[in-house]
Amino acid sequence: MFPVPDGISTPALVVDLDVVDDNISRLAAAAAAGGFAVRPHAKTHKSPRLADLQRRAGAVGLTVATIGEAETFAAAGFDDLFIAYPVWADAARAERLRRLADRALVAVGVDSVPAARRLGAVSAPVEVMIEVDSGHHRSGVAPGAAAEVALAAADAGLRVRGVFTFPGHAYHPDARSQAARDEETALAVAARTVAAAGLTITVLSGGSTPSLAYSRPGTVTELRPGVYVLNDAQQLALGSCTADQIALAAATTVVSAPAPDRFVLDAGSKILGADRPAWAPGFGHLPEFPDATVTSLSEHHAVVTVAPGGRVPPIGSTTLLVPNHVCAAVNLVDHLVVTRGGVVAGHWPVTARGANL
Amino acid sequence: MFPVPDGISTPALVVDLDVVDDNISRLAAAAAAGGFAVRPHAKTHKSPRLADLQRRAGAVGLTVATIGEAETFAAAGFDDLFIAYPVWADAARAERLRRLADRALVAVGVDSVPAARRLGAVSAPVEVMIEVDSGHHRSGVAPGAAAEVALAAADAGLRVRGVFTFPGHAYHPDARSQAARDEETALAVAARTVAAAGLTITVLSGGSTPSLAYSRPGTVTELRPGVYVLNDAQQLALGSCTADQIALAAATTVVSAPAPDRFVLDAGSKILGADRPAWAPGFGHLPEFPDATVTSLSEHHAVVTVAPGGRVPPIGSTTLLVPNHVCAAVNLVDHLVVTRGGVVAGHWPVTARGANL
Repeated sequence: MFPVPDGISTPALVVDLDVVDDNISRLAAAAAAGGFAVRPHAKTHKSPRLADLQRRAGAVGLTVATIGEAETFAAAGFDDLFIAYPVWADAARAERLRRLADRALVAVGVDSVPAARRLGAVSAPVEVMIEVDSGHHRSGVAPGAAAEVALAAADAGLRVRGVFTFPGHAYHPDARSQAARDEETALAVAARTVAAAGLTITVLSGGSTPSLAYSRPGTVTELRPGVYVLNDAQQLALGSCTADQIALAAATTVVSAPAPDRFVLDAGSKILGADRPAWAPGFGHLPEFPDATVTSLSEHHAVVTVAPGGRVPPIGSTTLLVPNHVCAAVNLVDHLVVTRGGVVAGHWPVTARGANL
Repeated sequence: MFPVPDGISTPALVVDLDVVDDNISRLAAAAAAGGFAVRPHAKTHKSPRLADLQRRAGAVGLTVATIGEAETFAAAGFDDLFIAYPVWADAARAERLRRLADRALVAVGVDSVPAARRLGAVSAPVEVMIEVDSGHHRSGVAPGAAAEVALAAADAGLRVRGVFTFPGHAYHPDARSQAARDEETALAVAARTVAAAGLTITVLSGGSTPSLAYSRPGTVTELRPGVYVLNDAQQLALGSCTADQIALAAATTVVSAPAPDRFVLDAGSKILGADRPAWAPGFGHLPEFPDATVTSLSEHHAVVTVAPGGRVPPIGSTTLLVPNHVCAAVNLVDHLVVTRGGVVAGHWPVTARGANL
């Protein structure tokens, strides 16, 4: 992995653009080979600069999670946006959707009849994608119930573009390929059900970074991974990236070494996020300390436990710490320090940071 | 708890100032009775407006976690600041400390000889507080080793104000009173050791929201709780606050109800944070749904599991969700929606949001 750039104030999130380029090219090549359209999820980076690199590599548009993210990317010139979320179009959101649809082609997720009717009443030329549950059990109707929502949307005057799912249960080391199969089945059932109800749809959308490698041509038309562009300690633990495909890490300083088996870095949950699934080996990955574990995080402390005989670095030295969940980390900073060839090349704003609305 | 104010766009963090006032008054009264100085930790709210309420109730100064937070509060007119963190004074930080010391009385944490020497070389009139470990095993030297660090600081020309500890192991339902006893012992040992080395100190500083109720007069001179002013689901689970002492919640909308035992709110880890200790019953507290559990959080989804026979609210309705860790939640928004008597009274900026440096 890239070294901590000289002269940087810690903690800071540093991005290696050389690795980013490789990650984008690799997905573009795999998608071309498999006949998939790529619509990357911009919630990961929230950065028009990074989204532009994805667009240049052939992305057909962007996926976003909120109307606020869509507004940010539309303002930056992205004109094909899918809000992959069951948006409830209250009065304020309805007005924002109308304005958004003036400047971009907009699709919105829907997974219930009330939300479909409400969206129809917006009178904005937005299309809809029906969300189905492929096994993650978050939002999304059962695949066999997709037609009911699709018909409600069509009755409300909305064009139904397709069906989508997020196979989030792929976030387990043993579940990646099975999640891809579940996604395939759920999309096929949903598409058949919708077609039987007399509606023509063109898009079957799926994909997550851990399930991506198992997507099969012909079963899904569009992939929406987000994390792949930067990767993180979770993906490393899942086996969906290698260490040299990780493009983002926190630059940190050793601020304390109070015991022979413990040191403390100046990065905590306020720059890394607090995500830690049960299968993750710790609260992040330390490329320079393979035998050490980030055993706890406070807001500004990463507590590192060193294996017996392991090295404790000097106080004041710097090292990289890869967050577990890069989407959460990026959302905690105003800008990313970007590097090329290990040298700082600029500071890119996280333009959609905090765009929760 | 206060209701969701009318006309609010969700998700948003809403603060009930009436509850804030009660929380501040209650601590002020307890501190006066026990003879403790109060130096609240401003990392919780990052808001000069809320800090001002604490100051008016007698706070002697503020605790902060970073130089950046100190700069924010100094700019807002707070002139007595303790950076309760083992600051490594590299060149950029040294310059910032010098400028900060021009406008405020500044104390800095230190827990190692190298950091003490480095801080001495800053040539800023900052005082130091020696950090000792009372059982949390994060930063802080063993209490018996406090003198070595204190002497290094004194030799480097720094005034040693006192010793401090964070009894973070109080964050367990069975550990609150024991953590207060551990704090007491650690501070006493450290103070004795430092005095035996010939240094005079005046401040023994401790306190955390869960251990606060167990602090005994004469054992600690200064308390530094942060969370108490707003409280959160963790404090409720720990028993260190009651439900009606919670002053902050996310206003959320039900966006999906895809199964009879499950609904989804539009607040996730990007506004609540992802903290979840093993002893917490879920990823937050739902005042209106006592039998329901927030079983998982994605970035923009809170998945709520309803007990058999429990109520599933209609899609489009609103409800409050209290985050597990309020410090993490506040840091994810640009402003807090503040209310009085259930009515929106303003939007207060989270001025020190993201001040990780």
